[in-house]
Amino acid sequence: MADINRQILLVSRPQGAASTDNFSLVEAPLAPLADGELRVRNHYLSLDPYMRGRMSDAKSYATPQPLNEVMIGGTVGEVVESKHPKFAVGDKVVGVLGWQEFGVSDGRGLQKVDDTHVPLSAYLGPVGMPGVTAWYGLNRIITPKAGETVVVSAASGAVGSVVGQLAKLAGARAVGIAGGAEKCRYVVETLGFDACVDYKAGKLYDDLKAATPDGVDGYFENVGGEILDVTLARMNAFGRIAVCGMIANYDSEPIPLKRPGTILTQRLLVQGFIVTEHLDVWPEALKQLGTLVAQKRLQYRETVAQGLESAPEAFLGMLKGRNFGKQLVKLI
Amino acid sequence: MADINRQILLVSRPQGAASTDNFSLVEAPLAPLADGELRVRNHYLSLDPYMRGRMSDAKSYATPQPLNEVMIGGTVGEVVESKHPKFAVGDKVVGVLGWQEFGVSDGRGLQKVDDTHVPLSAYLGPVGMPGVTAWYGLNRIITPKAGETVVVSAASGAVGSVVGQLAKLAGARAVGIAGGAEKCRYVVETLGFDACVDYKAGKLYDDLKAATPDGVDGYFENVGGEILDVTLARMNAFGRIAVCGMIANYDSEPIPLKRPGTILTQRLLVQGFIVTEHLDVWPEALKQLGTLVAQKRLQYRETVAQGLESAPEAFLGMLKGRNFGKQLVKLI
Repeated sequence: MADINRQILLVSRPQGAASTDNFSLVEAPLAPLADGELRVRNHYLSLDPYMRGRMSDAKSYATPQPLNEVMIGGTVGEVVESKHPKFAVGDKVVGVLGWQEFGVSDGRGLQKVDDTHVPLSAYLGPVGMPGVTAWYGLNRIITPKAGETVVVSAASGAVGSVVGQLAKLAGARAVGIAGGAEKCRYVVETLGFDACVDYKAGKLYDDLKAATPDGVDGYFENVGGEILDVTLARMNAFGRIAVCGMIANYDSEPIPLKRPGTILTQRLLVQGFIVTEHLDVWPEALKQLGTLVAQKRLQYRETVAQGLESAPEAFLGMLKGRNFGKQLVKLI
Repeated sequence: MADINRQILLVSRPQGAASTDNFSLVEAPLAPLADGELRVRNHYLSLDPYMRGRMSDAKSYATPQPLNEVMIGGTVGEVVESKHPKFAVGDKVVGVLGWQEFGVSDGRGLQKVDDTHVPLSAYLGPVGMPGVTAWYGLNRIITPKAGETVVVSAASGAVGSVVGQLAKLAGARAVGIAGGAEKCRYVVETLGFDACVDYKAGKLYDDLKAATPDGVDGYFENVGGEILDVTLARMNAFGRIAVCGMIANYDSEPIPLKRPGTILTQRLLVQGFIVTEHLDVWPEALKQLGTLVAQKRLQYRETVAQGLESAPEAFLGMLKGRNFGKQLVKLI
């Protein structure tokens, strides 16, 4: 076994757009374990939009990532050394061990997972936080009825892809918004959405209108900005908007919402949420999502960057929509 | 009894700001009643912000007021003639008979009311639609807990005044926003709010911050525009915003919401509503409100314009905040 751990630290906060200069790769010796600890060899890192928020120290829902510490992030891996009574070498675990090859844990926040029927990496995607995020926003905020229309932005992404597929399973019409013809084709042909609108095609309102002939009853918001304005204009009375992310705002000045009065005229429910604040739903959601993945009734796609050193570039690319499906970094 | 009815019709739709030119006063003979009909002499007309929306034919929650017909509006009055088995001459009734001195009804939408302990005009205010609007937004959307802070805009108005008093009764800190020192003094000294911010004083954010040292948990929105932006910036995590009106938008182009991302970062619930779509709560709400008014535990104030011909001017003044409390027109 290696005796050196490679880690990526956050070393500065972005002024405007995030850049690779905000990160630094360092090496550190593996320290001996104390009693009650275990060591995990991380197989995959998860890269997620929420991390952009942690890089800033503006008022937000989460405490900022401290400078000069290992960048936060979800991980899956294998126990390689254990002085913990409940974990044995060879156990597969999902946790939040950050951007590093090896992580040490006292077991808190670490879950053993079974990769017999569900691939290990899926625990960072459809059977992990992105999947539960989709599940919560759809089932607890949008609550679609059969025949209603549900729209989701970033539809080919880790969260959006699950939102639309669950909406279809609930009997709703699922319409995606994604960037580029290739992503849209995937959303319709592989994920089974009823329609997908390419926001890069330059006629977002007309295309969304054509894709939602009966208006929009539920909207799962991952993007914000113009996409939110346009979708708001298609909302039916008593529509529900689950606000999960506003990636368009992360690198820039806040983008105003053009017509807030629509919330009143259409009597909309708009609810922001963070899935880690709703831990009560995780067991039920993960059970359903794991079953659907094992039965291959829930499709997903991954973009895998190779090696820890690729994480910053892959993360910045994801913020710009260069990934296609769940963005991972493979470490082994 | 008079045999002429005076009525105000909507004769054109506003282009930009509404004006008295949009209305016309006409006279019409009183037609004989058919079987099952009754005639009401209206004592008071209610003037309400929602009427501005009805004057336009833009997509909204309500069908537009038809041109060249009697302007819609709530009324209280007395039955002066009846061929209806359930209404007798002398009955006091509240209904929606519009901007006219006499109204004919088949009894639908008309409620007999008791003015022994509650003044007749109060059925257009705290014990009528404005009161129930306040009750619904506060109790069904904001759901204040003791010790929380509730802010309401247009705090001296028919709805806002009830919101803050009900919030106080629920054990919350009530903070109003109103235009001018006199209204603010009334909100604190007469209505019993904990604080009131004068938005005309030119330092809205600083004053609101000082009045809400623990942030804002619930916001009852009647105004929109800058007041919404500023209050949003004070919202605590898991805050609730009941969107009842956006009077700042009614005469103008839509005013953008500057920082929609706050809905996510603070995990806010934002809910637009129209009280007439929640008829199930009316009996409970009216019973509570009527009891509070009869016991003089709920204060309210009226601005009364004299005579039907004063209605258009009084209505336009209300849209500009010139009224102080519930705007009525006294017809008798």
